[in-house]
Amino acid sequence: MSVILSAANARLKEIRKLARRAVRAERRQFLADGPKAVEGALGVEGCVQEIFATEAGAETYASLLADQQVTLVDDRAMAGLSDSVTPAGVVALCRFLDVPLADIAGPLVVICADVRDPGNAGTVIRCADAAGASGVILAGDSVDLYNPKTVRASVGSAFHLPVAIERDPLVAVKAAKAAGLTVLAADMHGTADLFAADALLARPTAWLMGNEAWGLPPQLAAEADEIVSIPIFGRAESLNLSTAAALCLYASARAQR
Amino acid sequence: MSVILSAANARLKEIRKLARRAVRAERRQFLADGPKAVEGALGVEGCVQEIFATEAGAETYASLLADQQVTLVDDRAMAGLSDSVTPAGVVALCRFLDVPLADIAGPLVVICADVRDPGNAGTVIRCADAAGASGVILAGDSVDLYNPKTVRASVGSAFHLPVAIERDPLVAVKAAKAAGLTVLAADMHGTADLFAADALLARPTAWLMGNEAWGLPPQLAAEADEIVSIPIFGRAESLNLSTAAALCLYASARAQR
Repeated sequence: MSVILSAANARLKEIRKLARRAVRAERRQFLADGPKAVEGALGVEGCVQEIFATEAGAETYASLLADQQVTLVDDRAMAGLSDSVTPAGVVALCRFLDVPLADIAGPLVVICADVRDPGNAGTVIRCADAAGASGVILAGDSVDLYNPKTVRASVGSAFHLPVAIERDPLVAVKAAKAAGLTVLAADMHGTADLFAADALLARPTAWLMGNEAWGLPPQLAAEADEIVSIPIFGRAESLNLSTAAALCLYASARAQR
Repeated sequence: MSVILSAANARLKEIRKLARRAVRAERRQFLADGPKAVEGALGVEGCVQEIFATEAGAETYASLLADQQVTLVDDRAMAGLSDSVTPAGVVALCRFLDVPLADIAGPLVVICADVRDPGNAGTVIRCADAAGASGVILAGDSVDLYNPKTVRASVGSAFHLPVAIERDPLVAVKAAKAAGLTVLAADMHGTADLFAADALLARPTAWLMGNEAWGLPPQLAAEADEIVSIPIFGRAESLNLSTAAALCLYASARAQR
């Protein structure tokens, strides 16, 4: 009979501390929560260090967990490990995935400067993956890649796509330029129209996207090779960040292919 | 000296019931919460029936509320009227805005079938507005247009753009066809590629978008003139609903212009 760990287990107590960003950063570990994230993590060699499941979770996700060693935990212990209100019943302890800035190469990259909402960051990663981008850089005061909400919103793409983390957005922009990428800042007040710039978009590109509320700081936008706007044909004042990123990335993908 | 209504006020108690969808539907009234929504509502003739503000809200949004009659309420009363955890301090009692199905005309329309998340519905309305669409139809078991989260996610576009509500998605599709629109179903398994279909997209179009989780029911998709897919160039399995809608709508806008 297998042992079923309870919430009082000392090792689980330690692992629960990964709910805090500072602890994740120190240990370079995070929890992949739910079958989608666990599946993504299992697809990355050496990423998963241990899998925890409730008995019900182990049964529900038996095919996912086949050939995996699983540590069984009770419902209360699972509730402590999971970020979800209704935990799916499977969580993986994972090592960090982010790659060095130098590993992010063209032809299509996104630099997110100060993206604060985990749902937005995850959705940008998902869209970048869908558009065939080669990587994402979370720069500046951006939300943590390993926030469970970021991972969830990426729907597995946080595991597919190389993501780098760079504290200084200017360093990210300069690295992109040094790698031969044209840096295009997405901004409401651009000089180029996204839908009339195919020659520009066909170049190897790093898209520079700003914060949800205040956009790009002017001194950072000034470092871009060109500022590009998505045309607004109706009366909406703007688009949200992840929608704007999807339109920019797909316009590049279309022009580059 | 103006009277400041408290949460115990009988009229406010009645208005608070508008938090429930059934009460909104019966009275054909809803609450526009926050300065952005109130501004949108004030832009629609005859929409706003009464404005409520805290003293702080009335001061903060003085320019918005200039020339408006404002009913002052205390903080607790405002908390009861507002959907927000931190109310902005201004709320408008509004009459319903939705238009008859027959009022939604081309050249660019979205039909949302069974869209359940208010954030998605609001974002689709915002994207449709940005792409210059002429209207949106919330069809089937879609989330309420007047859910405060829908209105908030639309960032004012719920007030700019004609939106119709139709219980039966098939009726919406048939109405679009009868109005001379080509109905394009957005689906992962389409026969046309969004980025290689400009002749098709140049036609007056109604985009048919399905539910976030299960997409379009096959019998509804079968009613479309064509099923169109957004190409996935990377390893992501799909895009989220509002991103997909934005890509489809902007592809149409680009082809039509």
